[in-house]
Amino acid sequence: MTEKTAVTPAGHTTPPAQFSHGVRKGNILQVAGQVGFLPADGPGKPVVVGPGLREQVEQTLENVRAVLEEGGASWEDAVMLRVYLTDTAHFAEFNEVWDAYFAGRVKVPAARTTVYVGLPAGLLVEIDALAVLG
Amino acid sequence: MTEKTAVTPAGHTTPPAQFSHGVRKGNILQVAGQVGFLPADGPGKPVVVGPGLREQVEQTLENVRAVLEEGGASWEDAVMLRVYLTDTAHFAEFNEVWDAYFAGRVKVPAARTTVYVGLPAGLLVEIDALAVLG
Amino acid sequence: MTEKTAVTPAGHTTPPAQFSHGVRKGNILQVAGQVGFLPADGPGKPVVVGPGLREQVEQTLENVRAVLEEGGASWEDAVMLRVYLTDTAHFAEFNEVWDAYFAGRVKVPAARTTVYVGLPAGLLVEIDALAVLG
Repeated sequence: MTEKTAVTPAGHTTPPAQFSHGVRKGNILQVAGQVGFLPADGPGKPVVVGPGLREQVEQTLENVRAVLEEGGASWEDAVMLRVYLTDTAHFAEFNEVWDAYFAGRVKVPAARTTVYVGLPAGLLVEIDALAVLG
Repeated sequence: MTEKTAVTPAGHTTPPAQFSHGVRKGNILQVAGQVGFLPADGPGKPVVVGPGLREQVEQTLENVRAVLEEGGASWEDAVMLRVYLTDTAHFAEFNEVWDAYFAGRVKVPAARTTVYVGLPAGLLVEIDALAVLG
Repeated sequence: MTEKTAVTPAGHTTPPAQFSHGVRKGNILQVAGQVGFLPADGPGKPVVVGPGLREQVEQTLENVRAVLEEGGASWEDAVMLRVYLTDTAHFAEFNEVWDAYFAGRVKVPAARTTVYVGLPAGLLVEIDALAVLG
């Protein structure tokens, strides 16, 4: 029997419904869709880091990283990052922020898919991750 | 050699193209995007359960569950549920239906990503799942 | 320790940011979102195969296949194909092209999710894949 455990970094906001920020089962670690919410010190309405793309991307990636690390993984274990943006005009700036963030952080970059969707008002980016441990 | 098997619950509608409702390979069970189609008793045009969000979400989750169970899994094995809605205004009601559905059904909730996309006319929700067995 | 390796078919365009066209770790092979770019003989602006849906779908599937094969896999190992289209009106033609492409290519079709999103100008389809090897 492979145990399934919820992965919840301290400071992560309470999800708005019954789901986990991360789940580990066997050697698979799945990170739920993260957005640019600031760390919280308890339940309450989540606060977005700010209105700008750069700050939201950086905070979102930090939130993904927090789940990876709480689950015993790192960027080196991530095989896929799914990126949801809201505007194709953001692609170039998004890639700049992405490359600056990952510079020196990972030897083998994960795969990535980027598509443009609707997100709740105020959010410009959402990212989830699949990692393989061991 | 790890065998790959198609997972097709009795009563599931025939896919509109060459893909499987579920696939198991090794300890991985992948559930294809499910929508609010009613069980069918053969090929033919699928019938949506109804126009409302609540009924579609409940039917969609039941359709996901059917594939999980046909593949030898349960909600407890699901590590990720990907939710596609069509309107950000549906988020609150969606979460209510979700929480009511999962109450008492699972000890460790899966991770989840929710984004807003276009779907074929009449469909308000689509959900797929990744499960790890064993 | 499970080694993580980047999977980069010869002729694949250089990604616009720090991510891999494919990643293998353990028995998992993840293919990044592929589009209808023609093979390239070096860095430079990628060229889309053409404006039509059929040609883009075929080229995109060939690009997914190239990553699968470079990673030691085939369509038979793919458990999930995620399809991003831009217009619900394309669904019927898309399925025709899909079925013609896969005819005779795979014994157990992968699971699939199809949703409608925004993509960069000129692109009508994006597809990524999850494969389980062994």
